[in-house]
Amino acid sequence: MSELLVGVDLGGTRIKAAVADGAGRILVHATVPTESYRGPEGVIDIIAGLVQRLATPLGGSLHGLGMGVPGLIDIATGTTKFMPNFPTQWRDVPVARMLTDKLQCPVRLLNDVRTAALGELKFGHGQQQPDLTMAFFAIGTGVGGAVVVDGKLRLGPLGAAGELGHQTLLPDGPRCGCGNHGCLETLASGPAITAEGVRLLHTGLAPRLYELVAGDAGRVNPREMQAAAIAGDELVREALDRAATYLGIAAANVVTVLHPDLIVLAGGVAELGDILLDRVRLVIRQRVGMFPAHEVRVEQSLLGEQVGMLGAIALAGEF
Amino acid sequence: MSELLVGVDLGGTRIKAAVADGAGRILVHATVPTESYRGPEGVIDIIAGLVQRLATPLGGSLHGLGMGVPGLIDIATGTTKFMPNFPTQWRDVPVARMLTDKLQCPVRLLNDVRTAALGELKFGHGQQQPDLTMAFFAIGTGVGGAVVVDGKLRLGPLGAAGELGHQTLLPDGPRCGCGNHGCLETLASGPAITAEGVRLLHTGLAPRLYELVAGDAGRVNPREMQAAAIAGDELVREALDRAATYLGIAAANVVTVLHPDLIVLAGGVAELGDILLDRVRLVIRQRVGMFPAHEVRVEQSLLGEQVGMLGAIALAGEF
Repeated sequence: MSELLVGVDLGGTRIKAAVADGAGRILVHATVPTESYRGPEGVIDIIAGLVQRLATPLGGSLHGLGMGVPGLIDIATGTTKFMPNFPTQWRDVPVARMLTDKLQCPVRLLNDVRTAALGELKFGHGQQQPDLTMAFFAIGTGVGGAVVVDGKLRLGPLGAAGELGHQTLLPDGPRCGCGNHGCLETLASGPAITAEGVRLLHTGLAPRLYELVAGDAGRVNPREMQAAAIAGDELVREALDRAATYLGIAAANVVTVLHPDLIVLAGGVAELGDILLDRVRLVIRQRVGMFPAHEVRVEQSLLGEQVGMLGAIALAGEF
Repeated sequence: MSELLVGVDLGGTRIKAAVADGAGRILVHATVPTESYRGPEGVIDIIAGLVQRLATPLGGSLHGLGMGVPGLIDIATGTTKFMPNFPTQWRDVPVARMLTDKLQCPVRLLNDVRTAALGELKFGHGQQQPDLTMAFFAIGTGVGGAVVVDGKLRLGPLGAAGELGHQTLLPDGPRCGCGNHGCLETLASGPAITAEGVRLLHTGLAPRLYELVAGDAGRVNPREMQAAAIAGDELVREALDRAATYLGIAAANVVTVLHPDLIVLAGGVAELGDILLDRVRLVIRQRVGMFPAHEVRVEQSLLGEQVGMLGAIALAGEF
């Protein structure tokens, strides 16, 4: 085993790491808690230890390490800039340099959703059409995004291009964690959808949902809401449709800008499947129907939960 | 004179044509009425006649003809598809082929605003930075747009990428000519701004505007409104600010997608200058302030009214 590629997916609660061969086939992988309370130094120690533990038995040398990070980073130096789900001491941490010092291999950091899009490009939908133009939405606790133009991930001068969750859709809408009002993220993220489910629960408008979660608002989530909608809660279905409609408007807006070949939905909320996809497709037809008939494909990620890790491996392969 | 480039700007009321040398320097130009009532055949005859009248005395051969067209066209064949300001018989007219038959030179058609962006790229702001990423808004009777990525105009599979005026900004907003509701075009075009001026005029809320247009609603336009705002009509200023705010939101949304180096405002309404530019800059800072400090430049076109014609000449130079 000569050249190993290392992928790391740094999350607020979990660190996932995998070691792959030069073709991107995962050989070993593991998940450990992030232990954020130990600060950047401590977390970087955990990552380095985990990688060594996985890679050493394989006996090869590390060709490179790619890491997806939930925030904005200085891509030229691999330094964290804005990490919304981490303590403030994570601002301006030279993570790439620190990991290179420990692991003696080149390290590249990228926003986690841009990383995932790289995975989709290399191992998912992009395999059929390497030069595709794609908008990638990752819908979970937040709404992240990425844009690929002619097979190339767009980063912009600061790695912040593709932040599709921070499009303004309602100029006077709810406050977003980014400081703006009415971002897509405030309208279609997991917590935004859940909040509306909780409202319906508390107002007695969602009897099926009430049964499913035994009246416990803490158990409401998009998946339970989907089950409630299927079981007959019309207002819960409307809530899901409304979130999907906002997602469709955001997708339609990206169509006006780039007219991509493909729009990919990933992340936990995308697991809702057709209830989401069909609405997004419909809204695109409604909103950019003046465009001559040309179906922009809207699909779920082909890689499911693996997409972020595979993207990190793809990133490692770019050295 | 060996190789001549011909640029044509086809408008609903006027046809502008120019002949330039190989470096894009305009040698002769002329403007004639479009005479739409004569139908596509008649209008194409007018264009061919005008070009011959301009080019023949120069004695060179025609290297190519570029033409900006107000609508969507099939770029591969130069056939008109959707021409919102022309009679319906303009659907599916093979304009490029018809002109090639008459003029014996290659002809390329492109949406007029995408054509103008090509002019800005080649002869305007792009001269300083040929590989720039740029969003281009042309604000006039409609709001057109174009997107340039790494110095290359993005067309998409149907030449419809860059339709920035048809972003949805108010999901339940006013009806747009494209069929959608709440497009930027319904909120910040010349007619949208004027309509609000007329409302203020009729309700007695714009005394300075009333004086300036002698009470005649037909004379209200964005320029008169700017004069009224400067003369003290606060509500007229608010109306201009609101339109500029919508433009700023649309620009901020494009920043989330592409994080361009530069946003250019062109077209008649862009002539309002700083009252528009300053607000757009402010709104971008407000809406995508989470992006690490990196000023996206917002500027007026360097080419003024010439931008469309120069773009058509640039298009002719691409053969």
